Amino acid sequence: MKRFQTIGIVAKQDDEQVLPTVREISELLLQLGRAVYVEQLPGIEVADGATLADADTVIKHAELLVVVGGDGTLLRAGRRLGSRRRPILGIHRGRLGFLVDIRPDETRDALQRVLEGEYWVEKRLTLQAQVELEDGSQGPFPAINDVVIRNQSAVRMLEFETWHGDEFISQHRADGFIVATPTGSTAYALSGGGPVLHPGVDAMALVPICPHTLSDRPLVVGADKPVRVVLSGSSRDQAMMTCDGQVNQTLRPGEQLIISRGAHSLELVHPCDYNYFNILRNKLNWGREKSDSRD
Amino acid sequence: MKRFQTIGIVAKQDDEQVLPTVREISELLLQLGRAVYVEQLPGIEVADGATLADADTVIKHAELLVVVGGDGTLLRAGRRLGSRRRPILGIHRGRLGFLVDIRPDETRDALQRVLEGEYWVEKRLTLQAQVELEDGSQGPFPAINDVVIRNQSAVRMLEFETWHGDEFISQHRADGFIVATPTGSTAYALSGGGPVLHPGVDAMALVPICPHTLSDRPLVVGADKPVRVVLSGSSRDQAMMTCDGQVNQTLRPGEQLIISRGAHSLELVHPCDYNYFNILRNKLNWGREKSDSRD
Amino acid sequence: MKRFQTIGIVAKQDDEQVLPTVREISELLLQLGRAVYVEQLPGIEVADGATLADADTVIKHAELLVVVGGDGTLLRAGRRLGSRRRPILGIHRGRLGFLVDIRPDETRDALQRVLEGEYWVEKRLTLQAQVELEDGSQGPFPAINDVVIRNQSAVRMLEFETWHGDEFISQHRADGFIVATPTGSTAYALSGGGPVLHPGVDAMALVPICPHTLSDRPLVVGADKPVRVVLSGSSRDQAMMTCDGQVNQTLRPGEQLIISRGAHSLELVHPCDYNYFNILRNKLNWGREKSDSRD
Amino acid sequence: MKRFQTIGIVAKQDDEQVLPTVREISELLLQLGRAVYVEQLPGIEVADGATLADADTVIKHAELLVVVGGDGTLLRAGRRLGSRRRPILGIHRGRLGFLVDIRPDETRDALQRVLEGEYWVEKRLTLQAQVELEDGSQGPFPAINDVVIRNQSAVRMLEFETWHGDEFISQHRADGFIVATPTGSTAYALSGGGPVLHPGVDAMALVPICPHTLSDRPLVVGADKPVRVVLSGSSRDQAMMTCDGQVNQTLRPGEQLIISRGAHSLELVHPCDYNYFNILRNKLNWGREKSDSRD
Repeated sequence: MKRFQTIGIVAKQDDEQVLPTVREISELLLQLGRAVYVEQLPGIEVADGATLADADTVIKHAELLVVVGGDGTLLRAGRRLGSRRRPILGIHRGRLGFLVDIRPDETRDALQRVLEGEYWVEKRLTLQAQVELEDGSQGPFPAINDVVIRNQSAVRMLEFETWHGDEFISQHRADGFIVATPTGSTAYALSGGGPVLHPGVDAMALVPICPHTLSDRPLVVGADKPVRVVLSGSSRDQAMMTCDGQVNQTLRPGEQLIISRGAHSLELVHPCDYNYFNILRNKLNWGREKSDSRD
Repeated sequence: MKRFQTIGIVAKQDDEQVLPTVREISELLLQLGRAVYVEQLPGIEVADGATLADADTVIKHAELLVVVGGDGTLLRAGRRLGSRRRPILGIHRGRLGFLVDIRPDETRDALQRVLEGEYWVEKRLTLQAQVELEDGSQGPFPAINDVVIRNQSAVRMLEFETWHGDEFISQHRADGFIVATPTGSTAYALSGGGPVLHPGVDAMALVPICPHTLSDRPLVVGADKPVRVVLSGSSRDQAMMTCDGQVNQTLRPGEQLIISRGAHSLELVHPCDYNYFNILRNKLNWGREKSDSRD
Repeated sequence: MKRFQTIGIVAKQDDEQVLPTVREISELLLQLGRAVYVEQLPGIEVADGATLADADTVIKHAELLVVVGGDGTLLRAGRRLGSRRRPILGIHRGRLGFLVDIRPDETRDALQRVLEGEYWVEKRLTLQAQVELEDGSQGPFPAINDVVIRNQSAVRMLEFETWHGDEFISQHRADGFIVATPTGSTAYALSGGGPVLHPGVDAMALVPICPHTLSDRPLVVGADKPVRVVLSGSSRDQAMMTCDGQVNQTLRPGEQLIISRGAHSLELVHPCDYNYFNILRNKLNWGREKSDSRD
Repeated sequence: MKRFQTIGIVAKQDDEQVLPTVREISELLLQLGRAVYVEQLPGIEVADGATLADADTVIKHAELLVVVGGDGTLLRAGRRLGSRRRPILGIHRGRLGFLVDIRPDETRDALQRVLEGEYWVEKRLTLQAQVELEDGSQGPFPAINDVVIRNQSAVRMLEFETWHGDEFISQHRADGFIVATPTGSTAYALSGGGPVLHPGVDAMALVPICPHTLSDRPLVVGADKPVRVVLSGSSRDQAMMTCDGQVNQTLRPGEQLIISRGAHSLELVHPCDYNYFNILRNKLNWGREKSDSRD
């Protein structure tokens, strides 16, 4: 595996808990002879020799990006990469994430092994959303978890049509529609009734939110073709499009949203003993034995 | 059964299709010697002898209220009753509703039989919502289907606590929360994953919308005690409260919503052969035989 | 509240862990001047003065029945009561149950308070199942959680019709059908997708198991009328009827099952600070905070 | 596309309705100068020149297999192919299937176009199940829809562990477990709460049946590695394994089931205007507009 010489560190905003970990990591990396770039955060202190810089400069120089925080922090860093490919190692702040899988107390060991080449890189599907509005096209907007379109008024359902490549899927009446990657299948899409997609499956989960028709069930389609969502002219309200929960755009009836595979995969660096299902079991409380009144 | 002498007619707004039916009903009722009040709508023509008036005057005089339109028209009329008890007969415009169960072509027969005392009155639970805001209390707002609280921004989940009477139910993180009557259990609550409640069950369905915790399942509680929803201080956004899909109020963290049994039941007048399950089967496409790839 | 003078103790079969608790309870009750009957179990030792007897004799003499074990032990004791009303206090063996809510280490305190009259009695709906076979009627069979009819062969779906009192509900094609009390709504019915019914709701949850028609959703109906399940003549196989998971009967096409309210409620004795939702939260892992990749 | 010269016809057993269609097809094919093999069924009459034979002989000679009947008939024919690759054209008997998509009245046209090379071949994932018993290995058993393991007694849940390749997925307590292909995702797996998988997704849906743990949700994993189900030693009963609903084997605690990709895909011959979603919409009643009480 590639030996990383220049490491960038980015961390959760507005969370003082991450600062000691960032400092510790920067010191360790310098001791190990690496060049270190650290995102400038309020109150941050790093070892002499590390370079403080804004996030984009950090990303620009880094061969490996270390993210300290929660899954949200990693998602933000990942979306920020744009056309630059940077493997990411995620370190959580005490609570395991789906994406930030290194415990703070494992950090030293994990980092050392990664720098010695003992790691593997898991590629995760990403998405990009293009919005075709009456007065022009917007985007592409990157997403790692999901692209969601939802009613804004909480009152009226959206009406929309969906397409997979050139094939018409269906008309829908629902609060909204989630297009999720395998990574996002354990986030909002799961709350909406969608399945868990293993990251090795090159597909998107299409999950209608509170659909009017009871048989309008979650659908899994290949990521090789774009999914298109066209807001019907009969929708009386604007819809809101979000990528990973960040608002990007509003759409009016007749306008459409095109979701396709992102230009690059997200590359997650894991220790060699990483196992997706270990994390899934932990996060979904599987196997936490529980009796019921059948016992 | 009571013989109705004064009949009020209200109809769907902005729908010319209802006008011939309204005219026909008003003529029939006058022939049968009844006093007739008709809601003044654009373009409406009624038989000589019928009194055109605004909806409140119609309701005030009516012993029986005939509603022509869809379920939404009946819901609006029902919420408008306030403290006045008025049995309602619902006539649909070609598409069976859950509440408007008389076909246009059955109208004459159905009305004659009702006026001869051949009918039964089904009582439906109603709700009222009181909103306790920082700067005072608002309400009560009437609801026949449901009281819903939902996030407005489509981005962040709401955090809230729920109570049944004095008993704490749980903390929730979700897009929102539906408190539905049996009548409303086949509306939005069903799309959200709730059960169908037979109207004879004196209970409310509590349905979290896209809940973060997978075991946060629909719950059915008695209508004898109010349900309270307290928006947690950690919610970062306003929430929106709707009754039967009509926006009534926004709530901020720390404010609460109290949903209790309405002062009066909704009284639906049905032909003697009315059967709740007939309508349910029809509306949910039950028994519409369909093979699957097991056949 | 009634002061209990004669106490019966029954315990989980084939579980040595319950024996010390049974002995401790019998000693305490004798010290408190009560007459004590204990079910004869292998290896059981009780304090001098307690009477060992078979379960029926214990039940016959007891004014209060103490059950030591899991929910299953309490269900068995409850079904055994037949026409005899006996309040039951449930003590678990280390793992909270839905019904056995007293911790072993709380037993002394809880018992003393109950004997001093500090308790309340919660009445739970029970069911009884009558089976109408070609060659006669069988039953009634008592059930506290649920009456279930299911296919036996794991291959073919059952086809059956359901009725609530005189009203036809629907035809179904499914692996089976669950009729659950509020008590049983947190058992098998919950796994099958049914709602949680608060014990104060006098209703049954009707839950089709893996139904062929996607809109064949859980239905909650009043417990005032029986539910009838008629196996269709086109079902090619026998079906199996179970009450609380105990096999009682097989049914052939054309035969039927009538489930109605049991003659007596189950009477659960609780400490005064008992709260149904506390147990529900604990058993369903509600509020056990968990991040997801939206965080 | 390949021009088929020798055509085999197999049809639904015990269904006289298929016989005229079989006769008509055999006549047409002979007129078009093809060699025709027809499965010998009771009462069958074919045109002079067609050869009646048992199903295996028909398959052996056929370059194209025409199946007349329902999806079940096509599944049986497909499983029968074994190591022989034969494209299959499915003609239904009046009710559209997921797999048999040619209407009887379209048969002439469709067949002529197919024979002229106007068709496309859709490849569907198949499975094979190997059963590792205490006293040896059984199988492989072919499946096109699904491999299911289920409890036999309808009383006790199964306990089992699942694996994807070398990775442990989880422990489960449930009535059973469905491993479905995309083809099978619209069959039993859908009734069990699974998602619809587009046939272009090279994956299996893993759907626990009535799982005890509410977060034990459907999971989609790649078809590149086998799924293994190991019956736990604590399961008190035998389990039953079925392939496409046909019983193949019983398993005892400690024994296991290995489900992997079948040696060959199922090759479905479709007219050029075939569209998967058209069939899905039709079969799931999508877009069959229906009001609810929100209207």
